[in-house]
Amino acid sequence: MSLVIVGSLAFDTIETPFARKEKIVGGSGTYCSLAASFFTKPKVVGVIGRDFPRKTLAFLRSHNIDLRGVQVKPGKTFHWEGRYGLDPNLRTTVKTELNVFGEFAPRLPEAFQRPRILYLANIDPDHNEGIFSQLKAKPKITALDTIQFWMETKPGTLRRELGRTDVFFANDEEIKMLAGESNLIKAGKRVLGWGPSLVVVKKGEHGALVFGGDFVFGVLAHPCEEVVDTTGAGDCFAGGFLGYLDKVKDGDKAACRRAAVYGSVLASFAIEDFGIERFAGLRQEEIEARYRLFKKLVSF
Amino acid sequence: MSLVIVGSLAFDTIETPFARKEKIVGGSGTYCSLAASFFTKPKVVGVIGRDFPRKTLAFLRSHNIDLRGVQVKPGKTFHWEGRYGLDPNLRTTVKTELNVFGEFAPRLPEAFQRPRILYLANIDPDHNEGIFSQLKAKPKITALDTIQFWMETKPGTLRRELGRTDVFFANDEEIKMLAGESNLIKAGKRVLGWGPSLVVVKKGEHGALVFGGDFVFGVLAHPCEEVVDTTGAGDCFAGGFLGYLDKVKDGDKAACRRAAVYGSVLASFAIEDFGIERFAGLRQEEIEARYRLFKKLVSF
Repeated sequence: MSLVIVGSLAFDTIETPFARKEKIVGGSGTYCSLAASFFTKPKVVGVIGRDFPRKTLAFLRSHNIDLRGVQVKPGKTFHWEGRYGLDPNLRTTVKTELNVFGEFAPRLPEAFQRPRILYLANIDPDHNEGIFSQLKAKPKITALDTIQFWMETKPGTLRRELGRTDVFFANDEEIKMLAGESNLIKAGKRVLGWGPSLVVVKKGEHGALVFGGDFVFGVLAHPCEEVVDTTGAGDCFAGGFLGYLDKVKDGDKAACRRAAVYGSVLASFAIEDFGIERFAGLRQEEIEARYRLFKKLVSF
Repeated sequence: MSLVIVGSLAFDTIETPFARKEKIVGGSGTYCSLAASFFTKPKVVGVIGRDFPRKTLAFLRSHNIDLRGVQVKPGKTFHWEGRYGLDPNLRTTVKTELNVFGEFAPRLPEAFQRPRILYLANIDPDHNEGIFSQLKAKPKITALDTIQFWMETKPGTLRRELGRTDVFFANDEEIKMLAGESNLIKAGKRVLGWGPSLVVVKKGEHGALVFGGDFVFGVLAHPCEEVVDTTGAGDCFAGGFLGYLDKVKDGDKAACRRAAVYGSVLASFAIEDFGIERFAGLRQEEIEARYRLFKKLVSF
C-alpha cells in the first residue's frame, strides 16, 4: 500500500470571532497526511522554508508520515492568513505569501514513484505533467483537489487534468462554478462526465455527496457543537478518504462509501481545535467510535 | 387516528429564474394536508375567500382531506408573492396580502376536537390559546411550525407556546435566530430545552436534523436534479412526518426517524413541480420507492 500526497506545508494565521492564532502550522499536505496516517503510511511531496518548525516535522514522522519528498529551501514557508465569520463555513483570505511555494517543483524520491494512490492537493495543475513523468507505474487511483484560483486562471489545464483523474474532490461552490450549473446534483454529474469515476463534493457542516457512475452517496457531517477552526477540514476529508482506500486496497462502491464516512470523521476531529492540534493524541479508538456514531446518526 | 392541521390555504404568485406562476394554490395547510394524506385522513382548519377554486377543494377532498374546518368568508383568499434566485433555497417575499386570513379565528368542528396530533402551521401564536380551549382532550402530540415574522413580533408568546409543544419544526436560519446561537447543533439543543421533546430542523437541499432528548438523527434531501419550486417543501416535510406518525400510532425514536425520512420524501416530490401540481397522480408506490432510495443514499 502507498499513498503519495503532493501538497502544501504552510503557516496559517487564523482569525475567528473568538480567537486569533498567528503562524500555526497548516497546509493541504500536512492536514491530509495526518488524517491519512490513521490508515496508511502517507508519503508527502512538498516544500518548506528553513523557518518550518522541526518539532512539526518530528510530529509528522511520529505519525509514520514519510517526508523524504519534502524539500527544504532557503527562504520562508508559504503563509496564508484568513478570517472566519460567525458562520465557520465562510472565510475570507486576508493575505497569501507564497514564499518558497511559489517556486515549488515537485520531486518524487524513488520510493515515491510507484504509488497505489496519488493525490494532487490544490497544487498548480501545470505541475501535474511533471509529477506524472516521474512515475514508474500508473497509480491505481489518481485523486485531485483544486481551488477556485486554478479554476479561474487555468480552466483548460484543469479540464484536461480531470481527464486523467479518478477521484475528484471539490466543495459545493467550486463544483457549481466548474460545471457552470447551479443545481448541485447536475453539477456533480456533469463533472463526472469529464473523466473522474468519482466526484466527491464537500459541503462543510452539511456533509458530503459522492457521485459515482451509477450511484449517489450522501454522508453527513458530525453534529459538532464546538467548531473551533474549519481550516483543513476538506484536506482531512480527502486524507481520511484516500488513507482508508489505501488501507483496504479496494476501490469498489462499498469501500468508497465507507471511505467517505472516514473522511467526514477525520474532518470532524480536525475542526475541534486550531490547526493540527486535535491530531496530537487522537486515538484510533476515537476514530472508530465516531465512525459508529455516523452509522447511528443516519440509521432508520 | 386523526391529525388536525391549522394553517393557511392561499394563493401564491411565484417567480423563479425560469418561470412565473400567477396565483396558483398554496398555503401551509394545503401543502401539509396533501403530504399527510398519503398516510392518514387529515382534518384542516383554515379560512378562504370566495375566490378560492372549487376545483382545488374537490381535489383535496379526493385525497381524503376533511375540510369541515375551513371557513369560507366574503372577500379574497390570502395571497403571497415571492421570488426565487438561482439558489432555490433563497427567496424574497415580494408581497403579502393577508385578506381573509387577517381576520382568521380558527374554529374546530366537533369531529376535530379530539385529535391524536394537532399541528399549528405558521399561524399567529396568539391563536393557539383559542384552539386549545376548543379541544375536548389533550392531543398525544402537539406540533408547531412558525415563521420569522412571529419570532420578531411575538417572541414571548412563541416561547410560551414552545412549552406546550412536543414537536417543533423550524428551518436552520430560524432555529439559530430563535436560540440566539450561530452553531446549529447548539441551537437545536437549546430550543429542545425549552419544552419540545423533538426539534426538527429543516435545511432545504441539505436535508434535516432531528434533535431528541438523547439522540440526533440526520436525513438527507433527495438528490433532485430538477428543482422547479421549493415553495411548500417545509410544509410537506411536516405533513409527511406527522401523517406517518399518525398512521403508525407511535412516537418512539425509531418511528420519528422513519417519519423524518417520509417528511423528506414528500418534500422531495413537492419541489418537482409548481405549487401542488406534483401531488396530482402521485402514487403510494412512488413514495415507497423513494423511501427505499433514501436508505440506499446513506447506507454504508
